[in-house]
Amino acid sequence: MPDTDAALLTAQLIRCPSVTPEEGGALVLLENVLSDAGFACKRVDRGGVSNLFARWGDKGHPRTFGFNGHTDVVPVGDAAAWTVDPFGAEIRDGIMFGRGATDMKSGVAAFAAAAVDFVTDTPPDGAVILTITGDEEGDAIDGTTALLDYMDREQEKMSVCLVGEPTCPNEMGDMMKIGRRGSLTAYFTFTGVQGHSAYPHRAKNPLPAMARLMDRMASHVLDEGTAHFDASTLAVVTMDTGNPATNVIPAECRATVNIRFNDAHSGASLTNWMQGLVDAVGADTGVEINMQVKISGESFITPPGPLSDLVAASVKAETGRDPELSTSGGTSDARFVQHHCPVVEFGLVGKTMHKVDENVPVDQIHQLKAIYSRILRDYFG
Amino acid sequence: MPDTDAALLTAQLIRCPSVTPEEGGALVLLENVLSDAGFACKRVDRGGVSNLFARWGDKGHPRTFGFNGHTDVVPVGDAAAWTVDPFGAEIRDGIMFGRGATDMKSGVAAFAAAAVDFVTDTPPDGAVILTITGDEEGDAIDGTTALLDYMDREQEKMSVCLVGEPTCPNEMGDMMKIGRRGSLTAYFTFTGVQGHSAYPHRAKNPLPAMARLMDRMASHVLDEGTAHFDASTLAVVTMDTGNPATNVIPAECRATVNIRFNDAHSGASLTNWMQGLVDAVGADTGVEINMQVKISGESFITPPGPLSDLVAASVKAETGRDPELSTSGGTSDARFVQHHCPVVEFGLVGKTMHKVDENVPVDQIHQLKAIYSRILRDYFG
Repeated sequence: MPDTDAALLTAQLIRCPSVTPEEGGALVLLENVLSDAGFACKRVDRGGVSNLFARWGDKGHPRTFGFNGHTDVVPVGDAAAWTVDPFGAEIRDGIMFGRGATDMKSGVAAFAAAAVDFVTDTPPDGAVILTITGDEEGDAIDGTTALLDYMDREQEKMSVCLVGEPTCPNEMGDMMKIGRRGSLTAYFTFTGVQGHSAYPHRAKNPLPAMARLMDRMASHVLDEGTAHFDASTLAVVTMDTGNPATNVIPAECRATVNIRFNDAHSGASLTNWMQGLVDAVGADTGVEINMQVKISGESFITPPGPLSDLVAASVKAETGRDPELSTSGGTSDARFVQHHCPVVEFGLVGKTMHKVDENVPVDQIHQLKAIYSRILRDYFG
Repeated sequence: MPDTDAALLTAQLIRCPSVTPEEGGALVLLENVLSDAGFACKRVDRGGVSNLFARWGDKGHPRTFGFNGHTDVVPVGDAAAWTVDPFGAEIRDGIMFGRGATDMKSGVAAFAAAAVDFVTDTPPDGAVILTITGDEEGDAIDGTTALLDYMDREQEKMSVCLVGEPTCPNEMGDMMKIGRRGSLTAYFTFTGVQGHSAYPHRAKNPLPAMARLMDRMASHVLDEGTAHFDASTLAVVTMDTGNPATNVIPAECRATVNIRFNDAHSGASLTNWMQGLVDAVGADTGVEINMQVKISGESFITPPGPLSDLVAASVKAETGRDPELSTSGGTSDARFVQHHCPVVEFGLVGKTMHKVDENVPVDQIHQLKAIYSRILRDYFG
């Protein structure tokens, strides 16, 4: 009966300096561990990014459990502010320090260790797939997307997928994610005609148009929340002119709006709504208003059901906590996986992610492996 | 019968490099010319600024005609762009070039020449006062104000005053000024609480407060104009945040508003009106709004009457044009003189003032002297 040490594996991964897009030895290490346990491994590198696909069991098996994660990490930042070697995996008083300690080398180590032990110890009637990318913290163009493209081409298929990102805000087990709000950013440029402040009728001031459009947008209630989502939010993030002269009416100004939206909206429906306001204010004021919209991601959800029940039950059994089923937070690679199969996310407490002296209690790595192991047993049981 | 050459005097003044606050020899020159004609002259220098007071006739005479003007000029600017020596007073095809050619060494020369000839040729039963400052283009703190303070102390009094600034937009004689709108600038700072765009409820975004306040201000019609004034105008001149991050709600933003107002308002009444809007928007949004108001000048008017009739009749006689009685344009020292006595402004076509290759047709200098001479004859006639 094997007992792969997830904490040791985490430490080995931390010692691989895999700042995006550097592979840093992390995927090579995982490929060795997984191959030794009988996983068929395939490097799916694309666009300078390294990715690893690993499957145990038969291709196309109707019961295929998937894990997704990443080994790349954000930069060290202010190196002088660290009290430890960011790539040293030093342990102090039961706490392991290092870049990626929570986000998310421990998560990858925990599910890899759980999968290795599970397939070795109790080979299931089914398959386990691990998709591990080196490009989650970067542009995410050639990371999980490349793995999913590969799987489409090769007719590889996960039945369900668990992303091992940190999801718990305070205590181990207090939250899992079943979806995310969408996000878009709209950039507005208002163009009028420059002139003298004393003679506004000879100019066309773009600033009142900006003020009115931003007031209307900021005053609008997008929704009050939906079954599984908080209310959508709109934030005016900047309005700028850069005119130092009080006797000059400027020709141009700019504003930016960021919207986090739930499943009552889509990027397209919000773009249409904004365009309607733009047209109305443009007609009112005679100011030319240009809008550029960048949709970072649509909202998505895996509604509460068998997959979230499975994960929640394991979390409860190992931690005693009923995880909140949340759709809060920023983006993750689950936004790509959701097009492939039902997906939820569960992982560690993320408090120190991206920070100086990022760290994880060693006990929590073992606990996370125990949760993942129980999920596998229950899924195939 | 003397015939002081106003064009020659203009050329001599242009050759004095009297960029504010330099006296440059201009006031010394005028003091010599006026003293020779029997004017009692007194230099009223203050705060590093040179000013000249000159009176012909009895102090305190109830019929005292005043002229006001300045000999200081704005800087040359891009010296390489001039096609002539800015202080050379070169004449080409009947046009005299140089800094101050229109604003307003020609005006000062014309009224000084008119006054010298008039008191010499037909000494009136009355007095003529010339107040000439070296600080109109600068801060104007120690210029005409210093002269008026001196006159108050010395019980010197003008019955009426004509400011010789350029007033004609297109043709000699097409406009005189009987007042000016007031001007104020209001600076707003909006302070909230920084936060993440995805969680606006944890932040307090100052931008919607700015948008709403500026929309309300820009939408408000201050008035439709009054008997002698155009409508007051309000221009939002800049709104700025400087936040480059679309996922960050900023803590602070700033806006500036410039108001040009007629005699339906005062700096205080407008400040009160703005404070009311600030309080309302602050209460609506919870954003802290700070307002700083700088009043550059109150509106003022010398209503159409004997003085404007006198000037308009002379302009008509010499140019054939009925000058428009205007209250348009920026500030001039008439804003100080209006506290002392009725004041109007009439002078040359101002098209090239403050520009490269500033110039004046020599004929217009003679014409302006003829207008000022006729005004003196008619006033004392």
